[in-house]
Amino acid sequence: MSDSDGGARDKMIDLRSDTVTGPTDAMRKAMANAEVGDDVYGDDPTVNKLEKLGAEISGKEAAVFVPSGTFGNQLALFTWCKRGDEVILGEECHIIQHEAGAASVIAGVQTRPIHAPDGVLRPGDLRQRLRKADLHAPATSLICLENAHSLGRVVSLADMDAVRAVADEWGLPVHLDGARLFNAAAALKVEAREIAARVDSVMFCLSKGLCAPVGSLLAGKRDFVEAARYKRKIMGGGMRQAGILAAAGIIALREQTKRLAEDHGRAKRLAGELGTIPGIVTKPEEVDINMVFFSFPPAKDADIAKGIVDFFAKRNIVISPPDQGVFRFATHYWIGDNELNLVLEASKEAFEKLFKGTAL
Amino acid sequence: MSDSDGGARDKMIDLRSDTVTGPTDAMRKAMANAEVGDDVYGDDPTVNKLEKLGAEISGKEAAVFVPSGTFGNQLALFTWCKRGDEVILGEECHIIQHEAGAASVIAGVQTRPIHAPDGVLRPGDLRQRLRKADLHAPATSLICLENAHSLGRVVSLADMDAVRAVADEWGLPVHLDGARLFNAAAALKVEAREIAARVDSVMFCLSKGLCAPVGSLLAGKRDFVEAARYKRKIMGGGMRQAGILAAAGIIALREQTKRLAEDHGRAKRLAGELGTIPGIVTKPEEVDINMVFFSFPPAKDADIAKGIVDFFAKRNIVISPPDQGVFRFATHYWIGDNELNLVLEASKEAFEKLFKGTAL
Amino acid sequence: MSDSDGGARDKMIDLRSDTVTGPTDAMRKAMANAEVGDDVYGDDPTVNKLEKLGAEISGKEAAVFVPSGTFGNQLALFTWCKRGDEVILGEECHIIQHEAGAASVIAGVQTRPIHAPDGVLRPGDLRQRLRKADLHAPATSLICLENAHSLGRVVSLADMDAVRAVADEWGLPVHLDGARLFNAAAALKVEAREIAARVDSVMFCLSKGLCAPVGSLLAGKRDFVEAARYKRKIMGGGMRQAGILAAAGIIALREQTKRLAEDHGRAKRLAGELGTIPGIVTKPEEVDINMVFFSFPPAKDADIAKGIVDFFAKRNIVISPPDQGVFRFATHYWIGDNELNLVLEASKEAFEKLFKGTAL
Amino acid sequence: MSDSDGGARDKMIDLRSDTVTGPTDAMRKAMANAEVGDDVYGDDPTVNKLEKLGAEISGKEAAVFVPSGTFGNQLALFTWCKRGDEVILGEECHIIQHEAGAASVIAGVQTRPIHAPDGVLRPGDLRQRLRKADLHAPATSLICLENAHSLGRVVSLADMDAVRAVADEWGLPVHLDGARLFNAAAALKVEAREIAARVDSVMFCLSKGLCAPVGSLLAGKRDFVEAARYKRKIMGGGMRQAGILAAAGIIALREQTKRLAEDHGRAKRLAGELGTIPGIVTKPEEVDINMVFFSFPPAKDADIAKGIVDFFAKRNIVISPPDQGVFRFATHYWIGDNELNLVLEASKEAFEKLFKGTAL
Repeated sequence: MSDSDGGARDKMIDLRSDTVTGPTDAMRKAMANAEVGDDVYGDDPTVNKLEKLGAEISGKEAAVFVPSGTFGNQLALFTWCKRGDEVILGEECHIIQHEAGAASVIAGVQTRPIHAPDGVLRPGDLRQRLRKADLHAPATSLICLENAHSLGRVVSLADMDAVRAVADEWGLPVHLDGARLFNAAAALKVEAREIAARVDSVMFCLSKGLCAPVGSLLAGKRDFVEAARYKRKIMGGGMRQAGILAAAGIIALREQTKRLAEDHGRAKRLAGELGTIPGIVTKPEEVDINMVFFSFPPAKDADIAKGIVDFFAKRNIVISPPDQGVFRFATHYWIGDNELNLVLEASKEAFEKLFKGTAL
Repeated sequence: MSDSDGGARDKMIDLRSDTVTGPTDAMRKAMANAEVGDDVYGDDPTVNKLEKLGAEISGKEAAVFVPSGTFGNQLALFTWCKRGDEVILGEECHIIQHEAGAASVIAGVQTRPIHAPDGVLRPGDLRQRLRKADLHAPATSLICLENAHSLGRVVSLADMDAVRAVADEWGLPVHLDGARLFNAAAALKVEAREIAARVDSVMFCLSKGLCAPVGSLLAGKRDFVEAARYKRKIMGGGMRQAGILAAAGIIALREQTKRLAEDHGRAKRLAGELGTIPGIVTKPEEVDINMVFFSFPPAKDADIAKGIVDFFAKRNIVISPPDQGVFRFATHYWIGDNELNLVLEASKEAFEKLFKGTAL
Repeated sequence: MSDSDGGARDKMIDLRSDTVTGPTDAMRKAMANAEVGDDVYGDDPTVNKLEKLGAEISGKEAAVFVPSGTFGNQLALFTWCKRGDEVILGEECHIIQHEAGAASVIAGVQTRPIHAPDGVLRPGDLRQRLRKADLHAPATSLICLENAHSLGRVVSLADMDAVRAVADEWGLPVHLDGARLFNAAAALKVEAREIAARVDSVMFCLSKGLCAPVGSLLAGKRDFVEAARYKRKIMGGGMRQAGILAAAGIIALREQTKRLAEDHGRAKRLAGELGTIPGIVTKPEEVDINMVFFSFPPAKDADIAKGIVDFFAKRNIVISPPDQGVFRFATHYWIGDNELNLVLEASKEAFEKLFKGTAL
Repeated sequence: MSDSDGGARDKMIDLRSDTVTGPTDAMRKAMANAEVGDDVYGDDPTVNKLEKLGAEISGKEAAVFVPSGTFGNQLALFTWCKRGDEVILGEECHIIQHEAGAASVIAGVQTRPIHAPDGVLRPGDLRQRLRKADLHAPATSLICLENAHSLGRVVSLADMDAVRAVADEWGLPVHLDGARLFNAAAALKVEAREIAARVDSVMFCLSKGLCAPVGSLLAGKRDFVEAARYKRKIMGGGMRQAGILAAAGIIALREQTKRLAEDHGRAKRLAGELGTIPGIVTKPEEVDINMVFFSFPPAKDADIAKGIVDFFAKRNIVISPPDQGVFRFATHYWIGDNELNLVLEASKEAFEKLFKGTAL
């Protein structure tokens, strides 16, 4: 944990997600002093600065500020597609799994999820599904990728190139759900813009691992972003003095992007040490970013699962309930080495007891 | 071919689909003499009679007449689902493949196609995808089956029971795209209502193998059908003196349903004899209904494919161009034994020549 | 009534609407003998002939056959507009009043009804509402007219010219709901194409006063009609051997359009004679087409209203219940002079009794 | 202007709207120190506090925080209505005029604007348009009011009562677009909750006259608000550490609501003094809130209009270009007496010159 008083402010160790990250002290100062204007009129200098910075960092012509990652992804679909078009995307991706069915409401598109292990869309599978409009068929109008994938994996540049090549054959745009774009960049040891260069539009979040309180950017060519700006209004995303939020976003992009490898390192260490606890199954080699998935089969029992969550809670550690015995722990800015040690201590105690059949 | 003069009326032998079937003479007579009224007011006695008959034959409480199979399927989705809900269905099903993306426009649902070999949704795959609405997820509100499947296969009652069981666990309705319900019944050697008993709503076509010129029925519980009747109006499907069409539909249900085994038998014979032609790969054991798929690899070449289509056309036989070397020939009422013999003669000549490297 | 046996077939005198008209004997013969094909493939010669005839008669490049007037109007909106666009139309028009809210579902447009006495959109009112898309506003993308109006009035060519002029200033298309286009033409004593020349697309019904059992045409430029043909599929309106219906439609356009002045004449006579009955208020000078509206204030009482409907029913005359004491009687093909006389006799008896305070 | 350094921060006098208001110093401090959490999980204590306060101040059971006023209005429609329902609202209201056609996209409803002078929906007009679903008609499912109206007028409690009474007759909910609810309360000299008591849901903005940088609340019964919270996610409005914004919102509700009468007083004074300038037509008696509309006919000329805007700009005063010669000047927190005097000086100079025919 970097800030001296952050621990005081957020006393809980929260492993549920990196979405729980509060702003850093530097962000709080910047927000308090932000120069603002009415962004609906394009008059907010801090938003304008953030959008310019976001465009640069992703290597795109322009970017538009939106209130959430879901908003940004859905705005991309709404801008790229006509209603009734078909969108190809991975069957476990965030847009399908965690955006409340919005693609069918806002953009009004036919979602066509395909098998995509670890978020990788395979060219053969893609080609089988792409189509032009004919008498009976809607046209594919967009391919969506997600990198880093919300299941914790990173898609290689080579795998992205392969999708790009198919998209180019068909003259189709590719949108990237880059909610954790900078985690992917850190994991792949490349600049974010090298990832974004393979797609036509990219949404990336300023919150999550980057700690800004609210907001994401949708970046792409100038025309695309201007069209998205109008559609943002239809979706109710025209905010007024959003420069307050943008001030934190600027720090997120400038400073916080540089430290994500720390979170990844702690996640790897966490996975490795959890793996030494009897009864826990984990794959440290599959920890690409800041998310550790591990399985503890007895926790398929609802009472045991609840017991574990409560046990951690008594130690001021917040975890999500397991899903079919599988836990997800996320590391982030507010999980320093001290916090990690406390998590490991608690884990050893809890899981060893349960493995031996002792009640918690 | 049953009618003496049908051949005179439709001189072409049309193998493209069973959708090409013109009405029988009995239908033409019934249409000419149909008693009609304004069906939007519920005043058309022949439509009322057809809807009652359709309900009986499918074992449902009620049925509503609609202008097409696509209309009926989409009306089912529109009636069962709230906008934004998720619908689980097989990845090769007609609703996804051949209905122009309508599910995203009319019902406004999130389609979630899953792997379904030969149209069979497997319980394990289903359970993995079903969900209740939560903070991030839309609720599954419908499972769709298709039987017979538009790829020519039939789903067994046991496989339907397995889906029914999962649906019941979750309290979900199942809709059946039964465009070729009576083909499935003939293939499974059961009554149509035994198939329909496994689902909550069923759409079945009066055209296709049954030869009525226009129209389908959507059947289910009375409340469902009344809700569908109102939504049919929104979709522009309120027709006036539709009793003209219904008169043919009544004959379709009463008479034509009994003779589909003939079409299936001819399809099996066609597959068997095509399979003896060198260079043709076909699987007669996979011919469940009136559709024969066979592969002739040289026809992957566009010029050769066109040559074959033209060769048949000169013999008054209409076929669809092959897709990647795969042909589909459909049998139906207007393909009697004479027609089948002509098709086989032409096939032998064409494919043997090509197999030997001779131009057509 | 023209056919000798029509009366036998439709023994009731039905004044509710011209939508109740059954087909003529000539139509029944034509349907029985129609040459048909699969219209989804464009193979139905009779549909093709009807679409060509419909294009000619409306002076447009092309036309597409649809199952209902509502379908045709909604298809026009769906084809002209992007979702979220604004459509300006009269506040009492059929699209707003009687199409089940479909414009918000199918086309997904923002309807903007404006004051339009007798269906006339006034240039000043129009100009006040038209707009280009800006930061906060959707663009107007279509103006809709209705002629004849479903409230029984006709819009003059001069009034249509005035709307056309405003539309041209703004570069906007105009769609005409011409469900009763030929009634308007008869009333204005012009060819239908003179009316249609003032708009970019026109929907006209083959049923209603023209007696075909089912169907309407949407006509316009070739590109527009081809786009509509694809969207018709999304709406489930792709019918198979629709030539059966088209055969009746051809007679509707060729023959029935010529006799509408008869219906108008009878409606005028009906209004005139009803106006002589004490207690009835009617305006024969406002009878433009085949609809007579008259008010009989005591019928605001629900029991009296029901009594009147029942009284007519006993004389085999079907009428709609009055709305706030206002009745609508529609004349049509199946209301000849004999039928009209019976209606007048029954009216005199019923309303005179009630006016004197005698029970029916 | 209340804050000593506000003028330094926002040197321009911006009369375009009250949406341009930057946050007060107290808000900036509160935002810098806000206690936050992940609001998508319901964990943000400051958002929770704001929502509780918003519910109290509007007299409702619950409230949900949203990123904009448009978002809140559209979320209300989306929550109250099924797609295809009809919504009755005034023809000049913000939802129709300034929300980019969103009602047809998000909620998918048929908007039915009716004549509503100064935002008042008249019971007779309402009753004429309300309807239950029947064979041909969508059901009215919501009536929308706007108070204060975006054209600067306030609707009296009596006029609201009249709408409420009609809504109760029909069992319909009423939604209030209360973007400027507290301006209405100040003008009517009542508590905000007395206005809100007449409606079932109310959206009110924390920005605009109340100076918070971003955000609005949608309040109503608990069930309604919980349903809206889920639909907020579909619209992409789930924000993470939104407590930063909520901290400013709490001050907006607690402090800023008390001072709006000042803005109204200055608007009245502005209208009065502008009215003394020759050539200007204004109606001070119609200045209900913080908006002054006045007409200067020569400004219908585009060059003159531009000249006026530029003239003000040179004096650091930002105004919107006139619409057909009609200007709107809005007062707000950052327009103190000094600023008002500068505006009046500039106005006198500009308009007097132009009235005399002198160039600016």
